[in-house]
Amino acid sequence: MTASPARVDAPASLAADPALVSLGRESVTAAEALLIEARGRLAREVSAQGRVSGRMLDDHQYAAHGLAWLATYVEALRQMTGWAGRLEEAGRLGEIERLIYAIGMGEYLAQIAGGIPMSQGEIARPSELGLGPVELAGFSTDAVQRLIAEGNTDAHRMRLVQIMTEREGAATFGDCGLDDEFEMIRDQFRRFADERVVPHAHGWHLRDELIPMEIIEEMSGLGVFGLTIPEEHGGFGMGKTAMCVVSEELSRGYIGVGSLGTRSEIAAELILGGGTEAQKAHYLPKIASGEILPTAVFTEPNTGSDLGALRTRAVREGEDWVITGNKTWITHAGRTDLMTVLARTIPDTKDYSGLSMFLAPKTRGTDETPFPDATIEGGEIEVLGYRGMKEYTLALDGHRVPGDALLGGVEGQGFKQLMRTFESARIQTAARAIGVAQSAMEIALRYAQERVAFGKPLSAFPRVASKLAMMAVEVMIARQITYYAAREKDADRRCDLEAGMAKLLGARVAWAAADNGLQIHGGNGFALEYPISRVLCDARILNIFEGAAEIQAGVIARRVLEGN
Amino acid sequence: MTASPARVDAPASLAADPALVSLGRESVTAAEALLIEARGRLAREVSAQGRVSGRMLDDHQYAAHGLAWLATYVEALRQMTGWAGRLEEAGRLGEIERLIYAIGMGEYLAQIAGGIPMSQGEIARPSELGLGPVELAGFSTDAVQRLIAEGNTDAHRMRLVQIMTEREGAATFGDCGLDDEFEMIRDQFRRFADERVVPHAHGWHLRDELIPMEIIEEMSGLGVFGLTIPEEHGGFGMGKTAMCVVSEELSRGYIGVGSLGTRSEIAAELILGGGTEAQKAHYLPKIASGEILPTAVFTEPNTGSDLGALRTRAVREGEDWVITGNKTWITHAGRTDLMTVLARTIPDTKDYSGLSMFLAPKTRGTDETPFPDATIEGGEIEVLGYRGMKEYTLALDGHRVPGDALLGGVEGQGFKQLMRTFESARIQTAARAIGVAQSAMEIALRYAQERVAFGKPLSAFPRVASKLAMMAVEVMIARQITYYAAREKDADRRCDLEAGMAKLLGARVAWAAADNGLQIHGGNGFALEYPISRVLCDARILNIFEGAAEIQAGVIARRVLEGN
Ligand SMILES: Cc1cc2nc3c(=O)[nH]c(=O)nc-3n(C[C@H](O)[C@H](O)[C@H](O)COP(=O)(O)OP(=O)(O)OC[C@H]3O[C@@H](n4cnc5c(N)ncnc54)[C@H](O)[C@@H]3O)c2cc1C
Ligand SMILES: Cc1cc2nc3c(=O)[nH]c(=O)nc-3n(C[C@H](O)[C@H](O)[C@H](O)COP(=O)(O)OP(=O)(O)OC[C@H]3O[C@@H](n4cnc5c(N)ncnc54)[C@H](O)[C@@H]3O)c2cc1C
Ligand SMILES: CC(C)(COP(=O)(O)OP(=O)(O)OC[C@H]1O[C@@H](n2cnc3c(N)ncnc32)[C@H](O)[C@@H]1OP(=O)(O)O)[C@@H](O)C(=O)NCCC(=O)NCCS
Ligand SMILES: CC(C)(COP(=O)(O)OP(=O)(O)OC[C@H]1O[C@@H](n2cnc3c(N)ncnc32)[C@H](O)[C@@H]1OP(=O)(O)O)[C@@H](O)C(=O)NCCC(=O)NCCS
Repeated sequence: MTASPARVDAPASLAADPALVSLGRESVTAAEALLIEARGRLAREVSAQGRVSGRMLDDHQYAAHGLAWLATYVEALRQMTGWAGRLEEAGRLGEIERLIYAIGMGEYLAQIAGGIPMSQGEIARPSELGLGPVELAGFSTDAVQRLIAEGNTDAHRMRLVQIMTEREGAATFGDCGLDDEFEMIRDQFRRFADERVVPHAHGWHLRDELIPMEIIEEMSGLGVFGLTIPEEHGGFGMGKTAMCVVSEELSRGYIGVGSLGTRSEIAAELILGGGTEAQKAHYLPKIASGEILPTAVFTEPNTGSDLGALRTRAVREGEDWVITGNKTWITHAGRTDLMTVLARTIPDTKDYSGLSMFLAPKTRGTDETPFPDATIEGGEIEVLGYRGMKEYTLALDGHRVPGDALLGGVEGQGFKQLMRTFESARIQTAARAIGVAQSAMEIALRYAQERVAFGKPLSAFPRVASKLAMMAVEVMIARQITYYAAREKDADRRCDLEAGMAKLLGARVAWAAADNGLQIHGGNGFALEYPISRVLCDARILNIFEGAAEIQAGVIARRVLEGN
Repeated sequence: MTASPARVDAPASLAADPALVSLGRESVTAAEALLIEARGRLAREVSAQGRVSGRMLDDHQYAAHGLAWLATYVEALRQMTGWAGRLEEAGRLGEIERLIYAIGMGEYLAQIAGGIPMSQGEIARPSELGLGPVELAGFSTDAVQRLIAEGNTDAHRMRLVQIMTEREGAATFGDCGLDDEFEMIRDQFRRFADERVVPHAHGWHLRDELIPMEIIEEMSGLGVFGLTIPEEHGGFGMGKTAMCVVSEELSRGYIGVGSLGTRSEIAAELILGGGTEAQKAHYLPKIASGEILPTAVFTEPNTGSDLGALRTRAVREGEDWVITGNKTWITHAGRTDLMTVLARTIPDTKDYSGLSMFLAPKTRGTDETPFPDATIEGGEIEVLGYRGMKEYTLALDGHRVPGDALLGGVEGQGFKQLMRTFESARIQTAARAIGVAQSAMEIALRYAQERVAFGKPLSAFPRVASKLAMMAVEVMIARQITYYAAREKDADRRCDLEAGMAKLLGARVAWAAADNGLQIHGGNGFALEYPISRVLCDARILNIFEGAAEIQAGVIARRVLEGN
């Protein structure tokens, strides 16, 4: 019952309190201590001879994933606090940023104490991690209590939505804390998306069409595919933060457009990380220019999450490799020139150690003949959302590639090469999630202002405002944790932990934003005519691909338990 | 960290403890006390001169809806405990029922203390209701603590899923506590659905087809449309519980089939409650037999939730009434014979007091000519799910009906007549939600057994099992609260409170089950080929129509605050 309509800039409001960020810092310390306690307890349960046991971790999976979510929240609090601190120092922490910060900290701290929703119906509570009243009392410092009690209030939410309404059309609600350079990139791609993508996205989806080549060519022209490729290889040599900003804005326009770069990113990362000099010289400039469009060929009908178990095999025949096996869920398989194929080359293995990565050329297909190669048979999979590139089953039947198609010329390294690459792909996916969430928010905000019920615009009702406010807050949280992962990747540190956190949280945030955005539309949300109905379908993929939510939580849990 | 693999039937397990139900009863008492406390506090905030003020309630809407959810949970605990107690007395409280009860009570009590998800991202916590540490300490009795700590454990969830697996194909997981008569009805309709609906539902959806007339005729033969109509009027004279069981089983087959009866239920209830003897005599037998298929014509393009504000008008011309206005979202408008139309007959009114209900005949359309009447223009609305009957915009342009089409021959009563009728419709909708959730659960359970990852069936992983277990638990909770509302309606008590609770909770349960059921499918969940992709789309409607979640919460809050 926090709704006494106090003005937010009144001294009584936590958001206006000069101590806000230092309260946040104290809370981070408390949350970190709780995490260390939880980690220690779980580590004891799942370790044998001082090492984390996979089997024991499986037995305690629910708790382990609870730990992963807790660690993700602690990182989110830390990154939000870093962001707020930097802005404050720069004199850029304005009212909207303070509101977002206060609401976000209050809400996430309250969830840490009361339960973090891992999915609808699976709530991770401290007790699950063996944390009892004593540990919770330790966590419940004055700073934490104050943020929980006064952070996510009706007054803050209503005021935040009021500012959002005033600033409708702004690229972001709140200063993201990035340098101007990035905001220029954002503006450029936002304009491109608004002009070239937004007006058509819904039609492409409804007609289940491929995104026109014209758009891809324009994206090539804008440098999308070479963004993070070093200049010496024909790219722009930018970092992952730039990739995030571009992916956000393109995905805000349409997830399909924001995903066109994913496969180029995967191929380029694979080659940069593990390719021979010849492979780099041959492929990178062409990927950067968009001349070569790659497709990522990993998943099989019986093997998705457990990639290490896949069965497609590649066999040497003279100088060549001959690839045979069934793949599925291959996005944009038709209209592409290069497959990055994970296949088994060491026949007697059953795990990841026998897998190798291939840069396997294929003939680019057309709408009429998507798979011209005799050794590739493709079948389209009809999907709920995430259209625009189409997904296919691929039967590779003796697909022959030259000897130098083996990535780095080494066998048995494919899985680890891919896992390192997935770090980038997951950061990019987190950015796609942010774009989708942003799109849901913008669409819903507009609708909530225009639609009147009971004599008021919908946005005047606290339950509508609370949905919109939480979208703005969580979009910012997802941004900060994603930019953090991007910086880690740029610093060349292994960051499957950080990338996993960004992807895990981003996917949930996007799904919640789309779900609540649709709800704000009432019946109209259910009409195919309204774009929010598509955004819901598009958002649903994010928890599944690039490592399903449960896989991501598993990676995070393991790294948290092992790493520290 | 509850996963020590204790056998559930070991004495250590709460589910096996003979005191389980009495612990539950004690917890209900504690939860009731908490609710009374919360209600008192909010009542003080939103009352003026001893009456609840609508405006103040709007200002405190988030808290008020939190109260509604709290009240719903307390009712759920009460109904679950009533159910368990009755089964125990009858010697029917077996292991599966005890597991469901222990998990459900533990989880819902924990949510009461830590936060109830009103939607993804909107969590109702005790603090929102002004409940602080003192009240929570009072709530946290030994019984509550024990159920929270030992109710929803890994061991219980894993064991529950094990039993579910053993009993795959059972009509319900756990004894619903209904008399044999109802289980016979369930079996009959389950068989019908399995034979006549399940094999076709997905195709109807994908092709966006009307459910074949043949199916409707078979349903007429089975008595679906006359189930609750008194025998003197040509029906079967059964109660609302029977309606629930039938609706569950038909909706488990396909939500569209389970919804065919909704409009007959609405028309029959309107007529039974407010019709003249002549209207009863004319319409009820024909509705009961399925000869007359009705459609419900309330919503307008600018007016959905706030029905009292609608603008379609009906004007007397001689003996007749002439209806003019735009309606939208009218389900099954084409292939039906009778419109129940809410229209304004008292011109100078702007609120509900000027609305009247009409039984307006129309000509049944065909696939080719859905709207043969010159005064009705219909336009199809393409939708995400809930297909099979199709939705339409309806422009009524001077649609003339005879003088005796006015329900009960009285003006200005339409809104209240409808609100009383919505009680039944919402109970029926809660039952539809249960059917949809059941369907998601059955599909996901089967998939989780068949699909192998990392060398095990998916169901062996705690995070998959936790999803399945929570589906079984929440389906049972939704059942018990729905059957309760049905009994209240049968007892002829105003039950918008109880019906609202059943609808509110049921819709969330179905949405969560569909969402998690899809997640268990991984990538395949996203393929249109897999029925779970449809179930997700179908489930999404339940939070929107028949009173959106926020409207339902508003009704409950007001009744809780006023009523007691
Ligand atoms: C639209 C779309 C596009 C895609 N594009 C590509 C592409 O271009 N290239 C490509 O190679 N792949 C692609 N994929 C495949 C995608 O990466 C896989 O779907 C994903 O990795 C999950 O694998 P799966 O579908 O086999 O699910 P499964 O591995 O069968 O998992 C099913 C469910 O079980 C859970 N689960 C699995 N193992 C465990 C465990 N040990 N503990 C707990 N839970 C577990 C999962 O989290 C999931 O919820 C795409 C998929 C989709 C839907
Ligand atoms: C598939 C489908 C079938 C339908 N079938 C029928 C039918 O056969 N006959 C018929 O008459 N109608 C039908 N409807 C209409 C349905 O009943 C309405 O969509 C529903 O009542 C919501 O109204 P609305 O769409 O105008 O949403 P709005 O009233 O505009 O509401 C939009 C959003 O704002 C929220 N909101 C509204 N007011 C408030 C408030 N005061 N406080 C907080 N939040 C608020 C709502 O909860 C919702 O989330 C159908 C709808 C659909 C989608
Ligand atoms: C589940 C999953 C995380 C791996 O699980 P796993 O088979 O248990 O593999 P491990 O975690 O044990 O890793 C195997 C090896 O790779 C290494 N590895 C894993 N991630 C790494 C990374 N990011 N960087 C470097 N090495 C890495 C591990 O250290 C381990 O090496 P070691 O055996 O020498 O210690 C992986 O299969 C996965 O990400 N699945 C999802 C698939 C996906 O995202 N598909 C999307 C297709 S578009
Ligand atoms: C929002 C909503 C609950 C009503 O809100 P409202 O306009 O504020 O109306 P009130 O709650 O004040 O009710 C108006 C009157 O009806 C009465 N009423 C409401 N529900 C009643 C019920 N179940 N039984 C008897 N009377 C009822 C009230 O007591 C009140 O009477 P009073 O003025 O004499 O005291 C209603 O419009 C609604 O249910 N909307 C959703 C529409 C819907 O479900 N559409 C589905 C179409 S398929």
